[in-house]
Amino acid sequence: MSFEIDFDRELALNAERIGAFIAADTYPDTVEPDLLRRAVRDYPTRGGKRLRSALLSWTCGLFGGSEETAKPAAAAVEIYHNWTLVHDDIIDDDDLRRGHPAAHVALGNALSASGIDASRKTAADFAVLAGDIQHGWAVATLARCIERGVSTKTTLGLLKRLQERVTIPLVSGEALDVHLSLRPLENVAVEEVERMMSLKTGALLEFCANAGAAIALDSAEAADSDPRAMETAAFAREAGIAFQLLDDWLGVFGDESTFGKPICSDLAESKPTVMLLDAVSALDGDDRTNLLSLLGRELDSAETARARTLFEKSGAPERTRREAEKLAESAKKRLDTFPDGKHKSLLIAWTNLLVNRKS
Amino acid sequence: MSFEIDFDRELALNAERIGAFIAADTYPDTVEPDLLRRAVRDYPTRGGKRLRSALLSWTCGLFGGSEETAKPAAAAVEIYHNWTLVHDDIIDDDDLRRGHPAAHVALGNALSASGIDASRKTAADFAVLAGDIQHGWAVATLARCIERGVSTKTTLGLLKRLQERVTIPLVSGEALDVHLSLRPLENVAVEEVERMMSLKTGALLEFCANAGAAIALDSAEAADSDPRAMETAAFAREAGIAFQLLDDWLGVFGDESTFGKPICSDLAESKPTVMLLDAVSALDGDDRTNLLSLLGRELDSAETARARTLFEKSGAPERTRREAEKLAESAKKRLDTFPDGKHKSLLIAWTNLLVNRKS
Repeated sequence: MSFEIDFDRELALNAERIGAFIAADTYPDTVEPDLLRRAVRDYPTRGGKRLRSALLSWTCGLFGGSEETAKPAAAAVEIYHNWTLVHDDIIDDDDLRRGHPAAHVALGNALSASGIDASRKTAADFAVLAGDIQHGWAVATLARCIERGVSTKTTLGLLKRLQERVTIPLVSGEALDVHLSLRPLENVAVEEVERMMSLKTGALLEFCANAGAAIALDSAEAADSDPRAMETAAFAREAGIAFQLLDDWLGVFGDESTFGKPICSDLAESKPTVMLLDAVSALDGDDRTNLLSLLGRELDSAETARARTLFEKSGAPERTRREAEKLAESAKKRLDTFPDGKHKSLLIAWTNLLVNRKS
Repeated sequence: MSFEIDFDRELALNAERIGAFIAADTYPDTVEPDLLRRAVRDYPTRGGKRLRSALLSWTCGLFGGSEETAKPAAAAVEIYHNWTLVHDDIIDDDDLRRGHPAAHVALGNALSASGIDASRKTAADFAVLAGDIQHGWAVATLARCIERGVSTKTTLGLLKRLQERVTIPLVSGEALDVHLSLRPLENVAVEEVERMMSLKTGALLEFCANAGAAIALDSAEAADSDPRAMETAAFAREAGIAFQLLDDWLGVFGDESTFGKPICSDLAESKPTVMLLDAVSALDGDDRTNLLSLLGRELDSAETARARTLFEKSGAPERTRREAEKLAESAKKRLDTFPDGKHKSLLIAWTNLLVNRKS
């Protein structure tokens, strides 16, 4: 566990490698019209920490595989993640993503710039199509595993697994997220929110761990039979819930310029998060009424401050962070069966980052 | 060419076989919530003529392959076609599909029935997600080719081809369709509309022919190297444009109850079709002004009748049908290199149906 690593440098190197691979990919070159082609490239080349590709590459390393072999798969999960963000941002009506205009906003701007006065719906329509092409791009990129020596059988197995074990749960999780927000808050159980989180965030992270192991072992079935591969999948699943809990915390207490999306937008959309349900049930009397009165609408800065004070008073933020840390600890313990080494240390540091990040 | 076939029966049999395969598929079983799962199953199980799967199966037969081997691929192209319809119907704000509520309308109804008063946007958000899962379903179904003895290599090659040669052009075609409708009609060239049609409709039909040949020859590359396979691809491409031209004709002159979607909705959305551009350029004076005045809004039945009269007067409908028939003839001629037989006769009858259908 005390294996010497420079985590920040390794994370930045991974992000650079994968970013360069995606930027050089010719897949979007034939997309028309121009503004759609730019939108297809936009999110996947915006950078970010590339946490999913790091998880995939380092799990591959943990099983003795090479990061070069895993490169197309690592790029594929980043592209895949990005198409879901494009559709999410339309659905959540979020105007910012990583500090820049969301896809549907950027497309609206591009239409205006070309002299077309398009409605918000029309701009969103183009964004739906951009996400659709990115979905295809992710699949085509995963299929490129064979260029790096992964067998055709493993590659095909991973493609099938992506569509069966990620698309269904992830998109279902997004739908449940919307569905829960349409129900009165008092009728939503914490377990339902936890389940939604595990589907929406956990499924893709679990796939990253699965794919890393599968590529190293050249067997897509390993994920369901090799006990160590199954342990890394469980690791990724738990880390994913920790990640989402911290995301909910950042959604209220993060710094907007660092977090890259508006603070308290979950409240504005009445999204039931574990932290919100906890706060509502812990508060009573006026405090509870006041917090509930801040849901379902945009908040100004005074209201945001008021919401934060009420959250703090409930103790929920502290409990949420503690729960995230507990899950992260449990996740890391699952790596105990692996001998100490570079990739194990990187995955441990990766988990620590999930629950200590500012964005 | 005089090979004895009962085309209607064969087409119905194919539709039944593929419909049963899709209906029995467990892929959507784990989708949540219930209303999303139902939406995922909805369009793909609505039936219809299943023209794309027939093209794929019969091309496979033409190259000596078996329809049983081609079954998962034939089902996959139908599911693929349906996800694009779900997203198209949101974008075009169409409320009907095959005579039943469009996906976003059905989802709005399902939300209401469960006591949730959802906006049109929220219902459309769920429909976007339903289409996203169907996209995954199509890919997963195509991956099932290996269950029928298609090699892993050919199957993977087809998956990659679907995402590279169908997703990009088809979605680009849809985006161009929207983009053209936002531009003033007088600035749109017929060539731009033809190009849009070839992308939006031609790409998937061409893939069907490619996939049928590839499965029979067990080589995904055959589509780019085998001259006869290339000829069937060209056949499908031409047939696709003929199909789309007739679709434009049906969009004005079809019978709503048979056609299954509102008549003149293309006009309401100011969609430039070849027939519309032809009519506008052929008419002059008041006739032209009157036709232009009927664009961009819903028409009542008197206005629909007026639009039809103006179209007839321009001669454009007649020219559109003739052009469709000319393309169909050219497409059929491409099959001359194949010896007469059941599958050749079926493909010829299939082409005749494209330009003689009522829906």
